[in-house]
Amino acid sequence: MINQNKNSQTSIIERATDYKPPRDLSHYLIGRALSTADAAHQTIGKIIGLAVFASDALSSSAYAIDEILIVLIMAGTGFLSLSIPIAMAIIILLAILTISYEQTIHTYPGGGGAYIVARDNLGEGPAQTAGAALLTDYILTVAVSISSGVAQITSAFPVLYPWRVVMAVFLILFMVIMNLRGVKESGRIFAVPTYIFLGMVLFTIGMGFFQYINGSLGRVVDVKEVAHMGEALQPLTIFLILRAFAGGCTALTGVEAISNGITAFKEPRSKNAGITLIWMSFILGINLFGLTYLANKIGVLPSHLETGFSQIGRTIYGVGNPLYLVLLGSTTLILIMAANTAFADFPRLAALHAGDSFLPRQLTFRGSRLVFSNGIVALGSVAAILVILFGAKTNALIPLYAIGVYLSFTLSQFGMAVRWWQCGHLKEGEEIVQQGSTLRYEPKWKAKLIVNGLGSLASAIVMLVFSYTKFREGAWVIVILIPVLVTIFFSIHRHYKNLAKNLSLDNFKVIPPHTIRHRVIMPVSGVHQGTRAALRYARMLSDDVTAVHVAVEPAEAEKVRQKWEIWGEGVRMVVLNSPYRLFVEPLLEYITEIARQRQPGETMTIVVPEFVSNNRMTDTLHTNTAELLRSQLKRQPGIVIVNVPYHVHERAGEH
Amino acid sequence: MINQNKNSQTSIIERATDYKPPRDLSHYLIGRALSTADAAHQTIGKIIGLAVFASDALSSSAYAIDEILIVLIMAGTGFLSLSIPIAMAIIILLAILTISYEQTIHTYPGGGGAYIVARDNLGEGPAQTAGAALLTDYILTVAVSISSGVAQITSAFPVLYPWRVVMAVFLILFMVIMNLRGVKESGRIFAVPTYIFLGMVLFTIGMGFFQYINGSLGRVVDVKEVAHMGEALQPLTIFLILRAFAGGCTALTGVEAISNGITAFKEPRSKNAGITLIWMSFILGINLFGLTYLANKIGVLPSHLETGFSQIGRTIYGVGNPLYLVLLGSTTLILIMAANTAFADFPRLAALHAGDSFLPRQLTFRGSRLVFSNGIVALGSVAAILVILFGAKTNALIPLYAIGVYLSFTLSQFGMAVRWWQCGHLKEGEEIVQQGSTLRYEPKWKAKLIVNGLGSLASAIVMLVFSYTKFREGAWVIVILIPVLVTIFFSIHRHYKNLAKNLSLDNFKVIPPHTIRHRVIMPVSGVHQGTRAALRYARMLSDDVTAVHVAVEPAEAEKVRQKWEIWGEGVRMVVLNSPYRLFVEPLLEYITEIARQRQPGETMTIVVPEFVSNNRMTDTLHTNTAELLRSQLKRQPGIVIVNVPYHVHERAGEH
Repeated sequence: MINQNKNSQTSIIERATDYKPPRDLSHYLIGRALSTADAAHQTIGKIIGLAVFASDALSSSAYAIDEILIVLIMAGTGFLSLSIPIAMAIIILLAILTISYEQTIHTYPGGGGAYIVARDNLGEGPAQTAGAALLTDYILTVAVSISSGVAQITSAFPVLYPWRVVMAVFLILFMVIMNLRGVKESGRIFAVPTYIFLGMVLFTIGMGFFQYINGSLGRVVDVKEVAHMGEALQPLTIFLILRAFAGGCTALTGVEAISNGITAFKEPRSKNAGITLIWMSFILGINLFGLTYLANKIGVLPSHLETGFSQIGRTIYGVGNPLYLVLLGSTTLILIMAANTAFADFPRLAALHAGDSFLPRQLTFRGSRLVFSNGIVALGSVAAILVILFGAKTNALIPLYAIGVYLSFTLSQFGMAVRWWQCGHLKEGEEIVQQGSTLRYEPKWKAKLIVNGLGSLASAIVMLVFSYTKFREGAWVIVILIPVLVTIFFSIHRHYKNLAKNLSLDNFKVIPPHTIRHRVIMPVSGVHQGTRAALRYARMLSDDVTAVHVAVEPAEAEKVRQKWEIWGEGVRMVVLNSPYRLFVEPLLEYITEIARQRQPGETMTIVVPEFVSNNRMTDTLHTNTAELLRSQLKRQPGIVIVNVPYHVHERAGEH
Repeated sequence: MINQNKNSQTSIIERATDYKPPRDLSHYLIGRALSTADAAHQTIGKIIGLAVFASDALSSSAYAIDEILIVLIMAGTGFLSLSIPIAMAIIILLAILTISYEQTIHTYPGGGGAYIVARDNLGEGPAQTAGAALLTDYILTVAVSISSGVAQITSAFPVLYPWRVVMAVFLILFMVIMNLRGVKESGRIFAVPTYIFLGMVLFTIGMGFFQYINGSLGRVVDVKEVAHMGEALQPLTIFLILRAFAGGCTALTGVEAISNGITAFKEPRSKNAGITLIWMSFILGINLFGLTYLANKIGVLPSHLETGFSQIGRTIYGVGNPLYLVLLGSTTLILIMAANTAFADFPRLAALHAGDSFLPRQLTFRGSRLVFSNGIVALGSVAAILVILFGAKTNALIPLYAIGVYLSFTLSQFGMAVRWWQCGHLKEGEEIVQQGSTLRYEPKWKAKLIVNGLGSLASAIVMLVFSYTKFREGAWVIVILIPVLVTIFFSIHRHYKNLAKNLSLDNFKVIPPHTIRHRVIMPVSGVHQGTRAALRYARMLSDDVTAVHVAVEPAEAEKVRQKWEIWGEGVRMVVLNSPYRLFVEPLLEYITEIARQRQPGETMTIVVPEFVSNNRMTDTLHTNTAELLRSQLKRQPGIVIVNVPYHVHERAGEH
């Protein structure tokens, strides 16, 4: 298929390459390479979308009640029933966030969540902050959820305890490989445990309410190590209630996931993503309310040894019941699965940053399976390092968690609020085109502004309460880390911007003069066939060739000199005496001196004969002077380096 | 200083470079760089020569008696007095070896010992075997002597025991740095402890004989854990005597050292080296005889806890006497110092092998201080690895030791015997010039042949007894290792020989035809100033330039195409569609295809624009396509790779 482009003087020929990636190891690990044209087939529907993007949010219902109760019990067991109004407040916050993100998804069909909303409405600073916060949080999500999953396994099989770090790293590796296979395939594999968990939770809530209605719902018995039991009670302050509320709010981390991943959905993307978000919020709301209400009726007590979730399960089913075991087993799986949401979102978000030149460009490359492979590998690596550093212990990582998510919520909602303000002040028919969407007049802008403003305020309060109450335990790391990350992002951005400006042809007026002299310098360490080939090439380049020999050994130098007189084709040779037996340095000095005397329009080329063997084993028997010279010379401006390889084939039998 | 060589058509210009190595870290560690012309000043006299090359041999007098007694006691304490005739036999062997090596030193003033003697008289196989055996033994000398020195320190300060490997590695590092400073300087530093030890041993022997004559010499008391005490006695067989003899022969390891290091001596080299050898043998003989004789008079018993040397010392001086402590302290130092002989000889011997192309050529390079730096570093590294592997435990390494030395003795003496045979069969006035020396008729050839023949036979017996008695404890490693090393040496040799033959211009008749076509291919990933510079260069090379763009992103490809129409200077562009988003592979496929259709005399050049930043930090933000392409393309024969660097200077303030 060759098309000649006939509209211009410059001929441009298009060729389709037959090249198909070979079936190597990666083929078996991550599947056959996908063509760019396959991208449309790699999108996912609502069913898999829910499994991929909701597992983070849904898994948190397994521990959210405990986060609320453990604070309230400080004021006494009598106040535990406050958990119901707090859960209601969280559900209202969930509703606000859902409405907001629903609006975002339809306004920004290209995806991006907090990052894009902040970028368009608040500017680059807040956008990078939101992005840095989310990226950090995704890394923590992987480290925390894998560590906690492994902790569940090692409490069942204590012999595995010494292997926990190894297990955690292997689980991360497994997730990396699954996600490199593509979002569709990993979604399909991970959907099964997600739906088992979902079914079990809803069934348990249903069972609970059924028992409550027919009066057979029991009270929990035999709770060991109840938190704060026997300690002095604290007064019930607004602050304590806010802290309980903030604790429960960890259940909402992951709500933003779908808005970042819109592009993974089948067309119509916004619609599919929007419906999935509503499903997710609806299920999450039912779980939160149902579990909190049942926890109160059953009399769940916060304990360091047993989750409230387990107390509800064993009260409803009885300890020996297989359904109770299925519930606990699927909980373990969903906790690990939560990491998958991070694997789906992190690479997308990192690619957005990289596309805007705030992160290394390599993060925008799609791998053989059309996913952002570098992002997946980067997430896996950093998370694995964290797991190794923290010895796969969850409690050390938990305080760092959730702050980032609420910071991004705050910025995203505030961005939306600003957007409604702007929309409200446009004339009908007037339009402002932004990078991610277009602003139009919106009649209901006041209501929408209030919803988003409230959401932003609530998120900000949750974030501040988090930071304040967990500052000493580790939250300070995040408070320092995010500004540092934002600074790094901006310096990367400056680098790329500066580079683009320097290389730009837009203001490129001065056509440099044609070469008036072409000087060729050729380092010669010995005279042999390789040198001859290089010399032939050098003379083809220019008539002005100088061979340079660095005389380290006088005897060797004499030999080179004699051979050059025979084989040098009359080309002049400069012998540099090197009394300190250095090779590269005198040569560099000579080249620099010549370069300094260069006239404008004079080109300088260094022709380096390079020995190449077909046997990598024997490479160590040679000093790779060519490599050494290149690495030194390439920092010298305006010098072109030519490698003339000479190949020596060795018979295989000789090694 | 520019001299034009006027005798030939090819002008050869000589330039002295002003370049002096800068004062960097290595300057402070190993001293200022020395010019090649300084070599003569780096030679050593007899005083330092004795310290450098004799510490290995002399240190063995500290443990040789024990090696004899510990075998004899198996037949009963009554047979311990046999140690005197055995010591006499060893001294006779020492005399034979000394005479032989004296002859060698004067016959081979260029140095080389066993390796050169075997090469000239027995051929390459035995020479490589002798060399491999010696090189192995030098590595073991370092590992063993450093480990035993550290063991002495940790038995005095048990708190240091857990740090023994670290200490041993640091001692090796220290020796490496000292030896990189040069043989003269390290000799000067290490001479002090050597001479203290020497003085103390001779003084102790003198004291002992003085006490013996005036009747005040006591008997040793309180020896703990006497070896073989209470075990069944063995009959006194010839084999047992041979084993005791072999044990005592460890005292002679290191006798060959001077013959390998002749070139380190001041002129007249042979004379200085020869006198030093006689001094050394004389002192060693006195030590051996004196200590063995005194041991018998004092009644020394072999023990696992206390050396015979220490028993002699405390009997003569008394335990609390400071002289006894100085004797033990200087023994510790000399045991460590023995490693220095290996550091002086190994690099020289390795350079000889490398000069004959049996080891990597890099071992012949002299460093900034005129020593064979690569050999010193190689010895230090391998010895450090051994020390780490064996946990700095001496007893695991000892059985591997000494076999190599006696193997090289055997070959060297046998070589000399063969030489005398040849000399005896020459006519007077006839000469045979060998690589290392010249053969002439020798009237006393029969006597000389008998001396060397005897020495060779005795060395061979010692070697066999060693191998047999210590086979299971580890000697088998050496029995396997030496043939393996010899095989490796020969395959390295074949590689270099083959390479030299392939590259040789001797039979180079066919002058290749002049280039009839020069095809230039230039990969273009984006159109910017860097591309323009590369294009300018490519067009200077040839009129036949093809730009190639690999279209990974369709949008990006369209942009490149449009810009190329403006800036491409009419050069044709081939767009390679890459549906699998691969960059390097389609390009390689295209280049290979073009290369396959090449006509004879057609040259092909790939011009690669290479981005170079003055900031190494930001290098990670770019994919180094140029590096990637080069590493792939250089294995393709006949393709020249040109790098046109484009430099972007970033202001320092921006990072």
